[in-house]
Amino acid sequence: MGTAAVFGLGSMGYGMADSLRAADHRVFGLDVVASSVEKFTAQGGETGEPADIAGELDAAIVVVLNAAQTETVLFGARDGASGEKIGIVESMNRGAVVMACATVAPEFARDMSDRCGKYGVHYLDAPISGGSVKAANGQLSIMASGSDDAFAAARPFLDAMAETVFELGNAAGAGSAMKAVNQLLAGVHIATMAEALTFGITQGVEPDKFVEVISQCAGSSWMLENRAPHIVEGNYAPHSAVDIWLKDLGIVLDIAKSAKFSAPVTAAALQQFIAASGQGLGREDDAAVAKVYAKNAGITLPGS
Amino acid sequence: MGTAAVFGLGSMGYGMADSLRAADHRVFGLDVVASSVEKFTAQGGETGEPADIAGELDAAIVVVLNAAQTETVLFGARDGASGEKIGIVESMNRGAVVMACATVAPEFARDMSDRCGKYGVHYLDAPISGGSVKAANGQLSIMASGSDDAFAAARPFLDAMAETVFELGNAAGAGSAMKAVNQLLAGVHIATMAEALTFGITQGVEPDKFVEVISQCAGSSWMLENRAPHIVEGNYAPHSAVDIWLKDLGIVLDIAKSAKFSAPVTAAALQQFIAASGQGLGREDDAAVAKVYAKNAGITLPGS
Repeated sequence: MGTAAVFGLGSMGYGMADSLRAADHRVFGLDVVASSVEKFTAQGGETGEPADIAGELDAAIVVVLNAAQTETVLFGARDGASGEKIGIVESMNRGAVVMACATVAPEFARDMSDRCGKYGVHYLDAPISGGSVKAANGQLSIMASGSDDAFAAARPFLDAMAETVFELGNAAGAGSAMKAVNQLLAGVHIATMAEALTFGITQGVEPDKFVEVISQCAGSSWMLENRAPHIVEGNYAPHSAVDIWLKDLGIVLDIAKSAKFSAPVTAAALQQFIAASGQGLGREDDAAVAKVYAKNAGITLPGS
Repeated sequence: MGTAAVFGLGSMGYGMADSLRAADHRVFGLDVVASSVEKFTAQGGETGEPADIAGELDAAIVVVLNAAQTETVLFGARDGASGEKIGIVESMNRGAVVMACATVAPEFARDMSDRCGKYGVHYLDAPISGGSVKAANGQLSIMASGSDDAFAAARPFLDAMAETVFELGNAAGAGSAMKAVNQLLAGVHIATMAEALTFGITQGVEPDKFVEVISQCAGSSWMLENRAPHIVEGNYAPHSAVDIWLKDLGIVLDIAKSAKFSAPVTAAALQQFIAASGQGLGREDDAAVAKVYAKNAGITLPGS
């Protein structure tokens, strides 16, 4: 088995690190949140400073929030005070692989791939989908693109973390493009579910009946079936938080604007998540976007 | 077996009339389009003038476009020239049932139910879902509400036409409310599918790969799986037309406005269908809303 480091022990990264350990890989876990690292090492994982461990890695799996954090891990932070710091890539061995899992613009992924290539490090554009439960069970979907060598180097780790690996071509960017498409749909579907469920309440449709009936009808979506029960239960413990959608739909609309692509439905959905965050709900489960609709219409949701 | 008339032999009504005949009911088919009636009678169905047949009916199944047409069938047209004409209800027998299948406002359904009640005619608020293929195969989903007597009178005909009957309570209005909720979701999901698929094209995501990958991911919806293949095939022969959504999302937003319910995602989606209709695509399959996005972004869809 190989040696990997997971950079970012959030709800996704922690589960991925666990899945790698369960498959008997040697795994370093790193995070700026000390308590996450302590939990990981208490359960038998290892940790270390990036510069110290980079040379030992077969794979660096980067599960941070966005493009800026990804770049910082790989090539160091740019700031005015200290100039460009050093990232892990220049200390990694030739033939090792970076798996970049954050939702980023395809162009960013291509740039990172090029820069890794200068150090002989492979780059797999590998955004993830499936949520924290699937991450912990090694059942993620990964939308991956990169060279054959990048896939070969990543394969033992992909096998440990993913139930489904979509192989989307031999160049970085394609994985991130498909992920952006998926996030557009997923985010809009959550907001639309909330819009429909609360609209239904104004017409006397009980939320539990909404779930029962609509999940069997043409109006169903994966997100509806997954998130509407949170509203029925009045349970907004975050599986995926409202603020994730400010980030991800923001990324989608940034990419769209660069392509001069008008995306009015996505734009409308994003505004509802922004309103939810503005009402202080940013860290609640994303189904809490329903509270924006409820507040606007003066209706009461289950459990409130 | 009983005697029923289907008012409206469009893509849904024709199949429903066929399903009733297949279950050995006696079936009258009526439509303002003479060729539809001729086709129905050529295949063994009956027809007649509404006033002549109303007294023979156990069930009047009204599968017209909207509330105004429903009211005309039931209680006659209101126009300034001729005053209020006569509909079928006053000629129907006590204990017969009206099944009203158009997408209408819940308040309209309650009003029709009350007016039917004055003639001793039961009213089942019975919007339908599933498309023309399921209609022809007796496999519709019907979102029904009404009195126990209305359900009992309708039961033999429901059994012939529906795979699933959602029983949504003992008062008209609940069925129409659930249908409006379903149409909100279905319409938005079609527009969002088109938005995502065309956005993907700008980022190098091939439409066939879009369908293959996204249908297995969190971004999937029933409508995406059903309609996106039309775009991949470049086939816009209408299963359900663009203009249906001008009507149905229009009804949803009318109901929402009456309830002072703000529905920004639905409103954005409706604008895209309106743009499609404005571009002359109103009678094409509703997946043709993708052409609006393609035109705006200067991209080419399959088959064009």
